[in-house]
Amino acid sequence: MKKILKHKISQPAISRLPLYFRALLDFQQKGIELISSKDMFLKTGIKADQFRKDLSYFGGFGIQGYGYHVKQLTGAISSIMNLNKTHSIVLVGAGNLGSALKKYSGFRKWNFFIDEVYDSDPKKIGRKIEGITIRDVKKFPKKSKAYIGVITVPAEAAQKVADIMVKSGIKAIINFTNSKIITDKNVLVRNVNLVNEFAITTCRLTFQQ
Amino acid sequence: MKKILKHKISQPAISRLPLYFRALLDFQQKGIELISSKDMFLKTGIKADQFRKDLSYFGGFGIQGYGYHVKQLTGAISSIMNLNKTHSIVLVGAGNLGSALKKYSGFRKWNFFIDEVYDSDPKKIGRKIEGITIRDVKKFPKKSKAYIGVITVPAEAAQKVADIMVKSGIKAIINFTNSKIITDKNVLVRNVNLVNEFAITTCRLTFQQ
Repeated sequence: MKKILKHKISQPAISRLPLYFRALLDFQQKGIELISSKDMFLKTGIKADQFRKDLSYFGGFGIQGYGYHVKQLTGAISSIMNLNKTHSIVLVGAGNLGSALKKYSGFRKWNFFIDEVYDSDPKKIGRKIEGITIRDVKKFPKKSKAYIGVITVPAEAAQKVADIMVKSGIKAIINFTNSKIITDKNVLVRNVNLVNEFAITTCRLTFQQ
Repeated sequence: MKKILKHKISQPAISRLPLYFRALLDFQQKGIELISSKDMFLKTGIKADQFRKDLSYFGGFGIQGYGYHVKQLTGAISSIMNLNKTHSIVLVGAGNLGSALKKYSGFRKWNFFIDEVYDSDPKKIGRKIEGITIRDVKKFPKKSKAYIGVITVPAEAAQKVADIMVKSGIKAIINFTNSKIITDKNVLVRNVNLVNEFAITTCRLTFQQ
């Protein structure tokens, strides 16, 4: 699954790729076939120079004086990001947030499928969310078919769930809890903290920057 | 509400404040009274130098050779971030994600209260989530009591809702949709895109960085 790159791609560049991808999907929907890096700037707020530099990591796609073929670039970025394949996800914690994520149609549109849901609550185990039966976390598979794990349990249970996931071969964990989790170095952890978003917003508002 | 600072605080510093705050709460819970910047590093992964530099924006709090009083620093950061006051939030879009956010207890712990919920769906209007009645978005107040607005509607309705919010005096919008929203320069917009988190994770995993 590893990609060979011309240069080492920077973390911020990786973070910008989904923005380009979304903008390109929007151009496509509107029937636009060719765009300039300025069009991309107007859509995403990312400067033309930056956009061109980011694309250069992957060999560049523009045609001098013409711009970028929307469809071609969409395909390329989708392939770079591995979004042209389906991604199987396992979620542990079928509470409010976990259930909402499972029901959220936006993930499916981007080829992310939450195929398995686990919980430890006997009241939840056996129930269904969108056709998927909630299973007992004690029966988490020894070798997971999914390679991305989502944690939406109470904070105090986060580390335990992370350990189970790592043991079963999960390669990346998206941690929605407040708790910091520690894993093997080879496992990628992404923390998504919704309270933080509110706190940062208040803080920025306070300093009006 | 504006704060006077010794120096202009950087955006990354603002983003780190909630991490310090959470770590401090955890130290408090464990009965720890004094910490060093190294303790903070072990907890948050943010280097001691960076921590000291961030605090210096606000005048510095450490005692040479002693470290930091946990309780005092918690109070100070809480006050800097305005987290010692309650924050009233209005949410538009009572779907899966919106409802989950309303039900999420983590926000209340940090003094964020979703006090009003609106939707345009007649099936949802009049129903209750956690004691709050879902009201018709057409009846959104002309002058909102809340100053933070959360948008969890389908992407195509995001701009319309943002316009309503801005008109009613909302100062900051947290946009959970895929859609870019355009507002007056004085209104702070924070985009939280959950699909992006998955896409970035896949992308990072692909490049194993």
